[in-house]
Amino acid sequence: MTVVLGPNRYGKAETRVVRVTRDGEVHHLKDCNVSISLAGDMEDVHRSGGNAAVLPTDSQKNTVYAFAKKHGIGQIEEFALLLARHFVGSQPTIHHARVEVEEYSWERRGPHSFVRSGTETRTCVVHHDRDGTSTVVSGLRDLVVLNSTGSEFHGFIQDEYTTLPPATDRVLATAVTARWRHAAPPDDLSNSYDFGKSYDEVRGCLLEAFADTYSLSLQQTLFAMGSRVLATRDEVCEVRLELPNKHHFLVDLAPFGLDNDNEVYFAADRPYGLIEGAVLHDDAPAAGPAWD
Amino acid sequence: MTVVLGPNRYGKAETRVVRVTRDGEVHHLKDCNVSISLAGDMEDVHRSGGNAAVLPTDSQKNTVYAFAKKHGIGQIEEFALLLARHFVGSQPTIHHARVEVEEYSWERRGPHSFVRSGTETRTCVVHHDRDGTSTVVSGLRDLVVLNSTGSEFHGFIQDEYTTLPPATDRVLATAVTARWRHAAPPDDLSNSYDFGKSYDEVRGCLLEAFADTYSLSLQQTLFAMGSRVLATRDEVCEVRLELPNKHHFLVDLAPFGLDNDNEVYFAADRPYGLIEGAVLHDDAPAAGPAWD
Amino acid sequence: MTVVLGPNRYGKAETRVVRVTRDGEVHHLKDCNVSISLAGDMEDVHRSGGNAAVLPTDSQKNTVYAFAKKHGIGQIEEFALLLARHFVGSQPTIHHARVEVEEYSWERRGPHSFVRSGTETRTCVVHHDRDGTSTVVSGLRDLVVLNSTGSEFHGFIQDEYTTLPPATDRVLATAVTARWRHAAPPDDLSNSYDFGKSYDEVRGCLLEAFADTYSLSLQQTLFAMGSRVLATRDEVCEVRLELPNKHHFLVDLAPFGLDNDNEVYFAADRPYGLIEGAVLHDDAPAAGPAWD
Amino acid sequence: MTVVLGPNRYGKAETRVVRVTRDGEVHHLKDCNVSISLAGDMEDVHRSGGNAAVLPTDSQKNTVYAFAKKHGIGQIEEFALLLARHFVGSQPTIHHARVEVEEYSWERRGPHSFVRSGTETRTCVVHHDRDGTSTVVSGLRDLVVLNSTGSEFHGFIQDEYTTLPPATDRVLATAVTARWRHAAPPDDLSNSYDFGKSYDEVRGCLLEAFADTYSLSLQQTLFAMGSRVLATRDEVCEVRLELPNKHHFLVDLAPFGLDNDNEVYFAADRPYGLIEGAVLHDDAPAAGPAWD
Repeated sequence: MTVVLGPNRYGKAETRVVRVTRDGEVHHLKDCNVSISLAGDMEDVHRSGGNAAVLPTDSQKNTVYAFAKKHGIGQIEEFALLLARHFVGSQPTIHHARVEVEEYSWERRGPHSFVRSGTETRTCVVHHDRDGTSTVVSGLRDLVVLNSTGSEFHGFIQDEYTTLPPATDRVLATAVTARWRHAAPPDDLSNSYDFGKSYDEVRGCLLEAFADTYSLSLQQTLFAMGSRVLATRDEVCEVRLELPNKHHFLVDLAPFGLDNDNEVYFAADRPYGLIEGAVLHDDAPAAGPAWD
Repeated sequence: MTVVLGPNRYGKAETRVVRVTRDGEVHHLKDCNVSISLAGDMEDVHRSGGNAAVLPTDSQKNTVYAFAKKHGIGQIEEFALLLARHFVGSQPTIHHARVEVEEYSWERRGPHSFVRSGTETRTCVVHHDRDGTSTVVSGLRDLVVLNSTGSEFHGFIQDEYTTLPPATDRVLATAVTARWRHAAPPDDLSNSYDFGKSYDEVRGCLLEAFADTYSLSLQQTLFAMGSRVLATRDEVCEVRLELPNKHHFLVDLAPFGLDNDNEVYFAADRPYGLIEGAVLHDDAPAAGPAWD
Repeated sequence: MTVVLGPNRYGKAETRVVRVTRDGEVHHLKDCNVSISLAGDMEDVHRSGGNAAVLPTDSQKNTVYAFAKKHGIGQIEEFALLLARHFVGSQPTIHHARVEVEEYSWERRGPHSFVRSGTETRTCVVHHDRDGTSTVVSGLRDLVVLNSTGSEFHGFIQDEYTTLPPATDRVLATAVTARWRHAAPPDDLSNSYDFGKSYDEVRGCLLEAFADTYSLSLQQTLFAMGSRVLATRDEVCEVRLELPNKHHFLVDLAPFGLDNDNEVYFAADRPYGLIEGAVLHDDAPAAGPAWD
Repeated sequence: MTVVLGPNRYGKAETRVVRVTRDGEVHHLKDCNVSISLAGDMEDVHRSGGNAAVLPTDSQKNTVYAFAKKHGIGQIEEFALLLARHFVGSQPTIHHARVEVEEYSWERRGPHSFVRSGTETRTCVVHHDRDGTSTVVSGLRDLVVLNSTGSEFHGFIQDEYTTLPPATDRVLATAVTARWRHAAPPDDLSNSYDFGKSYDEVRGCLLEAFADTYSLSLQQTLFAMGSRVLATRDEVCEVRLELPNKHHFLVDLAPFGLDNDNEVYFAADRPYGLIEGAVLHDDAPAAGPAWD
């Protein structure tokens, strides 16, 4: 019986980089959080502490800053691809790179003054392998949405522990975490692939499908959101959603001689329902490491 | 030598209430977090556990929900005043009430569909005493702003532990916590006092003064922000600000043969500068318990 | 081109349950957080909102509480298995259950008085499938450890972005997240399998291996920690570790005429190194869904 | 009507410092978080951005590190006093200093290996003024305690919004934030004043009083905890406590044919009761800025 090294990776997490670009008086701002994970010839470093195959995480951090200067930060997917290809391409001992980028949005208030906007964070995860393949997953998290009507929940299983009454009109609220896989990410960083436009339109699809789906279950809403993206955006082949059911319980006001016709709710913290699901094209290419 | 009971208060914290108002197909939403603190004849409950003077915190929670139904939730300052006056007015053992309300903002996406908007939270703290006096402090927190130029810092004390070089062009970023005291809050909840308009305009003043103040120190910016509010809004007599200096350090790219002309920054977490200050009219009425 | 439903699951997350057992005057306490995810015949609920196959998450919550009463909460792995088998066994539409339990530890201060102890949380994730197979992963998180010497880091790759000097004596600190897979979890909840003893001894192995490994890299320490568990505990076939490198940077005191012989450190927040790896027996049984 | 500058202060917050002391093979560790606030001649910096009176927050940070080297970090109150007196004593423009220190506890696992212990954080806040006076408040936070019986709550006010039934046996749980004021902090840092022993014994008093007070209200428990400290520790003249009532609600298991004789509880997050109070000697010296 021998001890073996299983799946492993290492890197610098959460390098916070802000890139300012000056266009005369007018400045532009990109505010990102970059996390890198590398894998490769890592037997020695685990078994004996021999670091000959190890690019220090400190050097990875430096690379983020140097690349921000040399290449700027355009769309986060492009910046992530650039970094991932650099590590695999420049270090023979690094066979695979995963780069995750979060972007925080800012709204302009003056030529060089900004205010943080929105509650959601834009995300991406990119993989690049020395066999030449790349995968790109774009996403967002903390997009908080609520429908104050147009949601029901009934017809469910009644087991011996079921006390929930059927609901024909309830509040439906969630904090959307969405990730979507690009079917054919570009081989190079040409402008022919517009990640920015793709992001805006996917976000729009998610919001619209949430708002205009009459919902008999949060799963139905999830499926509608994913399907809307697939129907609208050809470049996307799979959507994964995590939707916590942020329960809003109707408060019982009868003890105070008051009715409560869906007017006053208690917004609960825990526990919460959690609905997770993938929606994809039947001919979507294999995902490979895209979701890792 | 005798043991005495000093300042004390008790109440229900963080009651989360969502109030939906239906205008035909169109719904309106108020999403708040209410914290109540009461004080009064509390010797017995501390010394012997006699609860005859104690209105349970559970009843306070119920009152929030019942009032949300009966009165709706208009401006949060009005809702807080209503609650504070109720507790003091209805319970002889309760001599003083402090009510704090946070409001989360939602943006409309459809007749009854909403998305959480903005990073900041609107706040208020109201005090009401059985002597009939009320104080109202409105505020906001987590309003994150950044100027990418127009800020310097030099001419400071050089002691034996000073290594900071003078800066003639730096990023200035902060997460604003602002609270402002109303000089003469209304005795009743007539519409003559518009807390909503006041909030919007104070928020605008803070953003504008941050953006258009050429800054030689964060204190100067703080004073400018407070002064702008006082100069613009007659109903406000004092502004208190807490401004963490969210340091953005220029990354040294020289080791990589790159210059860095205010382009690439590291956004640091800790430590951070913290600037706190009050700006007020010299004839502002006494604050009383307003800031407690 | 057709849209298909991919991997999906749903359930109630973070049901907080505290179970008190009375042994005369002496009380015993179990404090847990239970998260359930179920999968099965879920096409209808996603495509049409038909809930006939759906056991409500509210019923799952009720089951946690009812089982805590009926069966007590012994070792969390047993409680999780009990729940997982119940859902799959009682509902034909539920084909697979994943149950995650966190346990918070309390130290006795009196016959019925307790104080929360330790920084770490004990965890487990259990899977049960209708084919009769179960997997059990035990774990812990937030076990924060630090060696003030006995750690070096040098001999690493020097690329054009490497500025890190070699270190021959550094602080090594991390917050351990560890999970370990049981090779053959019991078919029933007989006392022959002692999850409590297993947990205590694995935790001991992790702490000891961290403390007594002279470290040339955090990967080496990770491998030593995993190997120590495998060498000591026959019931464990695989260990997975996530070790953030909580950097402690030596402060440059030279500007103040002071040397700093590994005495004064700045404990940094971000960025941080992140080392992830698995250590397993070469004849470990297939993991199946254990790590999902 | 003139705009004036009200109360203000500025400084470096959350400087994280770890100090290692070597006693041969055996190392000792102090792990602290230091926050400094200074006040004084600050009209100019607010009104015109003139920084001549401003000691940079960066220099304050450097001072923390330099002092950790030169003086070591003994008891945190002593380190805070040393810093506060330094700033006021060395800078004529600085009239007042407030220094707050948090300490994280570590348990030894080897001659130079440690594990973070306990959930609570030790704290202190020190003020020093150029008039020569100092105040010292010691404290702790996040000390989480629970009694599974020995607590009642009844005999409270019944108003129209009261639905809470009386309780004759309930769980009482809280996360203690305690601060205690020293009557006569030492003028110099002689060993005659033992802050370490004082801390340990006050902590012990708080835990014991919580455990052995039969409680008719959380206020009664609060008063008993404060009084126990005052009765036991002569150096303490005032204790302030903040006790959130971490509600544990008995789950209704009747729908499942089960009784629940104080066995199964739901640990709620929000809302929560919040009890705040001070207990002091009637001849305690004036507090001055101690609690600011």
